[in-house]
Amino acid sequence: MKAYFSRRYRFSASHRLHNDAYSEQENREIYGKCNNPHGHGHNYILEVTAAGQIDPQTGMVCDMAKLDQAVRKKVIDRFDHTNLNLDASFRNLVPTTENLCIEIHQNLLPVFASGELGQAMLARVRIEETENNFFEYAGI
Amino acid sequence: MKAYFSRRYRFSASHRLHNDAYSEQENREIYGKCNNPHGHGHNYILEVTAAGQIDPQTGMVCDMAKLDQAVRKKVIDRFDHTNLNLDASFRNLVPTTENLCIEIHQNLLPVFASGELGQAMLARVRIEETENNFFEYAGI
Amino acid sequence: MKAYFSRRYRFSASHRLHNDAYSEQENREIYGKCNNPHGHGHNYILEVTAAGQIDPQTGMVCDMAKLDQAVRKKVIDRFDHTNLNLDASFRNLVPTTENLCIEIHQNLLPVFASGELGQAMLARVRIEETENNFFEYAGI
Amino acid sequence: MKAYFSRRYRFSASHRLHNDAYSEQENREIYGKCNNPHGHGHNYILEVTAAGQIDPQTGMVCDMAKLDQAVRKKVIDRFDHTNLNLDASFRNLVPTTENLCIEIHQNLLPVFASGELGQAMLARVRIEETENNFFEYAGI
Amino acid sequence: MKAYFSRRYRFSASHRLHNDAYSEQENREIYGKCNNPHGHGHNYILEVTAAGQIDPQTGMVCDMAKLDQAVRKKVIDRFDHTNLNLDASFRNLVPTTENLCIEIHQNLLPVFASGELGQAMLARVRIEETENNFFEYAGI
Amino acid sequence: MKAYFSRRYRFSASHRLHNDAYSEQENREIYGKCNNPHGHGHNYILEVTAAGQIDPQTGMVCDMAKLDQAVRKKVIDRFDHTNLNLDASFRNLVPTTENLCIEIHQNLLPVFASGELGQAMLARVRIEETENNFFEYAGI
Repeated sequence: MKAYFSRRYRFSASHRLHNDAYSEQENREIYGKCNNPHGHGHNYILEVTAAGQIDPQTGMVCDMAKLDQAVRKKVIDRFDHTNLNLDASFRNLVPTTENLCIEIHQNLLPVFASGELGQAMLARVRIEETENNFFEYAGI
Repeated sequence: MKAYFSRRYRFSASHRLHNDAYSEQENREIYGKCNNPHGHGHNYILEVTAAGQIDPQTGMVCDMAKLDQAVRKKVIDRFDHTNLNLDASFRNLVPTTENLCIEIHQNLLPVFASGELGQAMLARVRIEETENNFFEYAGI
Repeated sequence: MKAYFSRRYRFSASHRLHNDAYSEQENREIYGKCNNPHGHGHNYILEVTAAGQIDPQTGMVCDMAKLDQAVRKKVIDRFDHTNLNLDASFRNLVPTTENLCIEIHQNLLPVFASGELGQAMLARVRIEETENNFFEYAGI
Repeated sequence: MKAYFSRRYRFSASHRLHNDAYSEQENREIYGKCNNPHGHGHNYILEVTAAGQIDPQTGMVCDMAKLDQAVRKKVIDRFDHTNLNLDASFRNLVPTTENLCIEIHQNLLPVFASGELGQAMLARVRIEETENNFFEYAGI
Repeated sequence: MKAYFSRRYRFSASHRLHNDAYSEQENREIYGKCNNPHGHGHNYILEVTAAGQIDPQTGMVCDMAKLDQAVRKKVIDRFDHTNLNLDASFRNLVPTTENLCIEIHQNLLPVFASGELGQAMLARVRIEETENNFFEYAGI
Repeated sequence: MKAYFSRRYRFSASHRLHNDAYSEQENREIYGKCNNPHGHGHNYILEVTAAGQIDPQTGMVCDMAKLDQAVRKKVIDRFDHTNLNLDASFRNLVPTTENLCIEIHQNLLPVFASGELGQAMLARVRIEETENNFFEYAGI
């Protein structure tokens, strides 16, 4: 059964795209104005998709309140109203939407694996950085 | 060829999430405020996706007017401005978005199978219950 | 100074448009499918607009957290996930968006008058019932 | 790794759905008001999706500035503010969203194949013609 | 009482901004790519706002079904799926959003004046040409 | 004549709400998580509204290309992809949406006063900070 339940969350954060391994000029060429020294920010829209059988009793793929709780704890509390470079750095990676998306995927995988969301599996994480660009990651 | 034509429809309905097989307390724990006795409602956004070859003559995957007609007859006329528990109950199921989505998928399958929409096949049904949660079903 | 701060809130509710003073036929003619016996529902989008001077110290027209608190207490807790006819009836009025909007305006006026939101005044309440119709009320 | 980067672009164009191989009456029956003699128009929303590994240095699937440049040159400059029948005809096809989508897919394939966007591959092209209908094409 | 009921309608049309009183070069300078010879098009979003007392019996500012009927007859049937220059020309004016908006305002004024929408008055007409520009007209 | 032309622009920026005149604790109480030390960010949506007569020759309230140019120079180039506290500080004010809105209004007033946009006057500036809160300023 190909059944997918998705839920949208929002958080606001700032970041600067910059890799110390590059020279100043390379950083500027690769990241353009996203490399501006003091950073800038976005209203991120996060979409978490769970796949699974519909429980015949509850009529649901997973418990939405529990999913909300897990995402709040693992994602929103950590990233909302932060600077992604200084407050919420992850594995020394450049905080592109791509890396942020994978980080969130890796943070949510254990929640699904633990069984606290029932049989549902993490199917996909998608982040909209602006209304014109977004990234999605469905695992390896 | 992976070619998909999608069309959005809208309907407004009310529902109450409640399963008689559960106790009052269980219902409250499982469904939260969605279990409130007199129900509540939503503006549902339905997305029907047809897959198929593009007809080289018409340049279309399927006849949009005929699809509209079928969805109006099978879905909108039945669910719009109704109470999903009292007016449009389906197989005694709790009217979650999941169950509603599968019900609509099952209602549309025979339309596609009948050939009245040409070679197009039903690829997916997706329902947005609020701007923050949606469900999609692509069949078994 | 014409300065306006607005904040959006969302709630889901069901209702039936029906006036006991009319005959069944009159109700049907006036309200159409909105008169369906078991009701239907919407995702309401509420917009509350405050007007006032910008506090030179805080840089704000009013304290957003306090506004949120007041709207939650006076509006969301009362109307969200309810049936507007049975759970949240107001002055025996037909629960049209017009009447709902004025009811909310009247509920919020004392909050602004009390001074707990500083000098800000209630400028306007606006409700979107569907993406195609909305109502706004700016007082008498 | 299933990682997808998408970018949205917009263009405004007019078109008339009409196939000379059909009689006037057939055209009218097949295309309805979209066959009106002097045409009509839309604000098209184009979504280009690239798939690929995330470059561990840049943290990106592909260079967004280069993708923008390619889409501007191959798509926007050609279709924006044009009449799709008279200015930007493609292979004598009826300018349905389906045919337009495949035309754009075929125009972008060589850009991805050329390697100027790195290892990223063209995963999908999606066009929204109105807020109620859209088409996507993922290749053969 | 400042009470406003608004309703959104949509239509798709093509146009070319061109004034015969100007030279080719002047037209090009004034209208830019909107002057392209074969025109282009948009999905127009029209918003009609009625002002008035809320009828204490119906709870409504005006009869929405009657407003829909009037707008369909006076606006949608005339402009939808047309070329604004060739099919629906109005007083030899350049079909800018400004002129289109005023034309629609003038077409709807008699409907409101006739009393068929009760005591409601036409407060405003607003047209969105693209998601980035819109025009509104509230009369003289 | 009450005729208004509006245009939407977008920019991404970061900020921290903090007033040195307050103690750390006061800042925290007044601004909440918006006071987080390293800041956060938003996708700002700016709406500039011009009022005026419609030029009977051009059919326009003001020249959109010239307005775009002015807003780019005075607003976008200055605020886009910046940190509002460190890169684009204005009169030592806390960079709330309110203060940002008035700053932009003051920056655009001379453009309208100069006559380079014809007879059009600046009617209003509106900024959406998130999809749930926005501020508008129409001058003194």
